[in-house]
Amino acid sequence: MTSIGIIGSQGRMGVALAAAISEAGQRSCGVDKGGDVARLVAAADVFVDFSSPGALEATLDACLAARKPIVIGTTGLEERHHYLIDDAAKDIAVLQTGNTSLGVTLLAHLVREAAARLDADWDIEVLEMHHRMKVDSPSGTALLLGQAAAEGRGISLDRCSERGRDGVTGARGHGKIGFASLRGGTIAGDHDVIFAGPEEMITLSHRAENRMIFARGAVRAALWLIHQPPGRYTMPQVLGL
Amino acid sequence: MTSIGIIGSQGRMGVALAAAISEAGQRSCGVDKGGDVARLVAAADVFVDFSSPGALEATLDACLAARKPIVIGTTGLEERHHYLIDDAAKDIAVLQTGNTSLGVTLLAHLVREAAARLDADWDIEVLEMHHRMKVDSPSGTALLLGQAAAEGRGISLDRCSERGRDGVTGARGHGKIGFASLRGGTIAGDHDVIFAGPEEMITLSHRAENRMIFARGAVRAALWLIHQPPGRYTMPQVLGL
Amino acid sequence: MTSIGIIGSQGRMGVALAAAISEAGQRSCGVDKGGDVARLVAAADVFVDFSSPGALEATLDACLAARKPIVIGTTGLEERHHYLIDDAAKDIAVLQTGNTSLGVTLLAHLVREAAARLDADWDIEVLEMHHRMKVDSPSGTALLLGQAAAEGRGISLDRCSERGRDGVTGARGHGKIGFASLRGGTIAGDHDVIFAGPEEMITLSHRAENRMIFARGAVRAALWLIHQPPGRYTMPQVLGL
Amino acid sequence: MTSIGIIGSQGRMGVALAAAISEAGQRSCGVDKGGDVARLVAAADVFVDFSSPGALEATLDACLAARKPIVIGTTGLEERHHYLIDDAAKDIAVLQTGNTSLGVTLLAHLVREAAARLDADWDIEVLEMHHRMKVDSPSGTALLLGQAAAEGRGISLDRCSERGRDGVTGARGHGKIGFASLRGGTIAGDHDVIFAGPEEMITLSHRAENRMIFARGAVRAALWLIHQPPGRYTMPQVLGL
Repeated sequence: MTSIGIIGSQGRMGVALAAAISEAGQRSCGVDKGGDVARLVAAADVFVDFSSPGALEATLDACLAARKPIVIGTTGLEERHHYLIDDAAKDIAVLQTGNTSLGVTLLAHLVREAAARLDADWDIEVLEMHHRMKVDSPSGTALLLGQAAAEGRGISLDRCSERGRDGVTGARGHGKIGFASLRGGTIAGDHDVIFAGPEEMITLSHRAENRMIFARGAVRAALWLIHQPPGRYTMPQVLGL
Repeated sequence: MTSIGIIGSQGRMGVALAAAISEAGQRSCGVDKGGDVARLVAAADVFVDFSSPGALEATLDACLAARKPIVIGTTGLEERHHYLIDDAAKDIAVLQTGNTSLGVTLLAHLVREAAARLDADWDIEVLEMHHRMKVDSPSGTALLLGQAAAEGRGISLDRCSERGRDGVTGARGHGKIGFASLRGGTIAGDHDVIFAGPEEMITLSHRAENRMIFARGAVRAALWLIHQPPGRYTMPQVLGL
Repeated sequence: MTSIGIIGSQGRMGVALAAAISEAGQRSCGVDKGGDVARLVAAADVFVDFSSPGALEATLDACLAARKPIVIGTTGLEERHHYLIDDAAKDIAVLQTGNTSLGVTLLAHLVREAAARLDADWDIEVLEMHHRMKVDSPSGTALLLGQAAAEGRGISLDRCSERGRDGVTGARGHGKIGFASLRGGTIAGDHDVIFAGPEEMITLSHRAENRMIFARGAVRAALWLIHQPPGRYTMPQVLGL
Repeated sequence: MTSIGIIGSQGRMGVALAAAISEAGQRSCGVDKGGDVARLVAAADVFVDFSSPGALEATLDACLAARKPIVIGTTGLEERHHYLIDDAAKDIAVLQTGNTSLGVTLLAHLVREAAARLDADWDIEVLEMHHRMKVDSPSGTALLLGQAAAEGRGISLDRCSERGRDGVTGARGHGKIGFASLRGGTIAGDHDVIFAGPEEMITLSHRAENRMIFARGAVRAALWLIHQPPGRYTMPQVLGL
């Protein structure tokens, strides 16, 4: 039996992770926000972190010290967090992703394929809706899907994003990838990637009914990660896409 | 036969208006962007303007001078334009609207009704998508629908709008009405008003297949406006809602 | 504290009802499929039945014998079941509905209003999607929404339904109300009522994230029903619509 | 300049084809329903037929006699029509398809890919909506998309279709591909392929704003077909997918 350590065990995702670990017949242990990660590290074989960007550095340090792999599902990461992850990945196995579900991972694959086939006359827009408590926009998953579209088209997402449209913004920029965020109710996560061409439109969508799908995917990723050498990994690798 | 004057006759809506006027068995005349509105005024019984906010003052002056009614479908109006319209409405019949279609007018009515019945635990979001050439966000129709929701709930839209979400914005404000805009392809106009409650969601939507529906509604409004005394009117009045 | 009796206590809805009753601070008791309803009747103040049409007659007999009110949410009822309900309603309070959620009850109200305002040039279609285990099509809620549309338009649903389209069916019948059913996955219940007019379309939708919303609405209805005299009631009455 | 012959030139698609041929800088000629196809054959280099299954045999005979290629977009074909096409393809180049648009052709490709990656725990449903005048259900495009899904999954569509759900049908068949059709208004063609899995759902959609996209795709196919040897071709080959 594998012991999976949950960073942020009392949060919504922490509770879902404990349920998914139990469902998978494995053992969980956890530390809540602000708890002593170093102590947890001894007890677990692999970690799953859906807590907050602020705690990431300490968590990575503890994993590095103990040479234990980690799955990072935290959203709202900035450039410096990605540098920390790249550094850690020299010594331990790290899987960082904006979304751990099977469905979204496949959707990103389809988005990359569609973007590669359609020319820039097809405008790309990414729309997401989440529950009212979500604090960051666009969602990590929306950015992951936008990144897949940019890769398919062979452009850099940083340079072609169009976000937060409001006011007299002028006509849409040619070749841009737009993002829009809706918030409300208890929605677990809806995502649409729209390819709007001349008089026709293709939309590729994902809808999560609840957060258990993310917890299950994270557990699947953690169990896979244990067997990998140091390096930085992604969900498509877990699923063999 | 009624003669309907088109302000901005060479624009996309101008061409659609000429077709709709002909379809309705009436006569059209027009002046293009930057043309001499005063001269057109003598030739027409009523005016329809879908041009630009910048031209509105001159157009209203010409209508006032000739005591002729006018339908204003221009979007992107600011507060000062509304003052101009209120002033003009003391002497002539003016109908200003963000959307002239029968469907959107009914939708706004349903949105008002739903917002009046649901408490503030139901988050309201307005989403719209238009073609890539549209320059203003949110669309005039989205604002019209948000206004209907605010009226139904008995609050002021100005004070409760949440627009252009981007970055770490924190949890959604309680009681806010959110707006998001998508742009792409040749979409004539899609609008969704979402009421997201605890574990359930109601969505009221409208989709325009092309801009002829706006032109037809504007012509219907113009023919109705001829018979009204001075004042400021709205689409629901045209449709008897 | 009120004691609410659950008919079919071990089914999916039975479990959800027990949770909702507990959430509302009331006491539940129950009898499973094939159990002794008569015995349960003595223990409860009011009943909620989401079991199956086949058991309805015995359940109503037991309620009548004990003069106890009942909420019936069972779907797939036939004409003869409605006769049984009408008969029982002479002596006890009975609320029968295809859907107990607040959102659907409001949606039906909006559908009736829209259908009353739009002429028969606007084709009405009702679409629903439910999980793969659902055995009847269209859903009780779809029929309830179709009924609301028919009432708004002043026609009889029986005579204007168009169901199970397949093959060379010819053009759509003028004034018909169409139904279509999708089945798959674990979807708790999606419903769309579409009004498709000339070059524009209005869609009124409801989405349930899980079946707790139905259980909560049923409990709210049961607590209201206790205070009513004998008669047949509906959800809009519970909500004061 | 290439001369493209339209079979059914006065129908809705016939008119759109003439416009698309002119747009592409080519010459069109045509024969209406019941007209003399043999005579047209001499005048054209390649044919496009969106007329009706009943006329197909005579049309193919004329093309065969003159050794001229043909694009067949007619829907509602039966098995015997496909035999006729296979026979003709021994001597002339024939492209038969349920949908000539670029977007739908790409969508079918994505559907095949998704179906190949997801196991049979993901239920597949195909939904389509068309204008009120369409006489056959499901649409040819819906069948084409269902066929792509069946191919991806490695099953036969004939044996796993579930169509025209109505009444007490029992739980959904495991591994089935379901179809549902909506009709109303002036909708040019909406298609959704839904993969509904355990607590998540992927939807791949296409929306046509008007029938010009089908006409343009058919013209593109016709111009490509002129350069091919005898054989039976498909849209993905035209687009190099």
